[in-house]
Amino acid sequence: RSGEMAKLTQLIDNEVFRAYATYATIVLLKMMLMSVTTAYFRITRKAFVNPEDTASFGKGESAKKYLRTDPDVERVRRGHLNDLENIVPFLGIGLLYALSGPELSTALLHFRIFTGARIVHTFAYLIPLPQPSRGLSWAVGYAVTILMAYKVLKTALYL
Amino acid sequence: RSGEMAKLTQLIDNEVFRAYATYATIVLLKMMLMSVTTAYFRITRKAFVNPEDTASFGKGESAKKYLRTDPDVERVRRGHLNDLENIVPFLGIGLLYALSGPELSTALLHFRIFTGARIVHTFAYLIPLPQPSRGLSWAVGYAVTILMAYKVLKTALYL
Amino acid sequence: RSGEMAKLTQLIDNEVFRAYATYATIVLLKMMLMSVTTAYFRITRKAFVNPEDTASFGKGESAKKYLRTDPDVERVRRGHLNDLENIVPFLGIGLLYALSGPELSTALLHFRIFTGARIVHTFAYLIPLPQPSRGLSWAVGYAVTILMAYKVLKTALYL
Repeated sequence: RSGEMAKLTQLIDNEVFRAYATYATIVLLKMMLMSVTTAYFRITRKAFVNPEDTASFGKGESAKKYLRTDPDVERVRRGHLNDLENIVPFLGIGLLYALSGPELSTALLHFRIFTGARIVHTFAYLIPLPQPSRGLSWAVGYAVTILMAYKVLKTALYL
Repeated sequence: RSGEMAKLTQLIDNEVFRAYATYATIVLLKMMLMSVTTAYFRITRKAFVNPEDTASFGKGESAKKYLRTDPDVERVRRGHLNDLENIVPFLGIGLLYALSGPELSTALLHFRIFTGARIVHTFAYLIPLPQPSRGLSWAVGYAVTILMAYKVLKTALYL
Repeated sequence: RSGEMAKLTQLIDNEVFRAYATYATIVLLKMMLMSVTTAYFRITRKAFVNPEDTASFGKGESAKKYLRTDPDVERVRRGHLNDLENIVPFLGIGLLYALSGPELSTALLHFRIFTGARIVHTFAYLIPLPQPSRGLSWAVGYAVTILMAYKVLKTALYL
């Protein structure tokens, strides 16, 4: 079976695929940071949603007051959902794009701009920066994904 | 390295894989349209959630009144989340299914029905159509995904 | 074209890739169960969000009272969203990890622990179990994903 393993390894040896693997992993790790950020704000703001999470603050009414929404917690959660809505298309379309045989330099440009745009979007959402920072960074990532989708459909279209 | 690139290109030359690439891209583009639809309703309904988004409508109380929920905005957001919940399994299971060696005609049937069902689901949600339109279109996409998962597990099971 | 098909089938014949296919499918099917669970609680608790879903309960005010939130429905929905937030990174990073040439036994260990942790997380959320059950099961799945991301970046890094 070492022959098959070699063939698999060739996929990860391809430079375009390695670039995809790198940026997809970075952007997913960035998204995963949103979970920790939510937990951080829930704990520091004492704003929880599940009764079992407030048990350590005491019983009954004394714990119940921590079952509340907090503007900072909700902001991080919106940023997290926006990540899901935009990173899922990038993962799927980006993988197919990487397999559609693009130039390495073109592929790198797409992956880098998308990843940069999502990092800027996170800061624009969490600080928050005045608009149109968040809107523009969202639109840049969106446009890059559309461009990759166009290349995938041009190369692979089979309806 | 041109030999490796050739091998990668062979993946996108396979007809089943090309069909997957086509329908996965279409269904992801459809999901991405939900972001634009949400933005459209937020702007036309003047219903925002982030204070920085209403800054162009003036300062203080005059802008604050636009921080509100709107039934149409919430409806699009629910449709978007339902897309995420159903398209993520399709992307993952569909990719593995495409690699599990199905007949081209069978694979096309699965991909086409799923994609059609999700498009009907979107119209059923946004217009909205009376039930059971939305429920049925959801169930059809769900059933297709289960069928593909069965084929993947039958072909690849390795616990 | 049978030669190409053979090459594709070799991917699904690789044991590490088969293990990924198996556990990714299991964890996605588990996530899909959350949709059915939400529907079950919406129907048994008579707690809906779309007016068209309550039409079978009568017209006007008599149906309107079923447009409400229910704590059990909201709990399942939070579990579902938490699945999305954690299973999407596993799908993407796990696929790249499977292609990065890990030892079969090491890969199986990662996939099994992640899948087990997410199943425990679901029970901990839905029953609910007292903390830190849910927190710990979340953290175990999160840590496994980080470890796989480290292996992907170590093998494939191409910035």
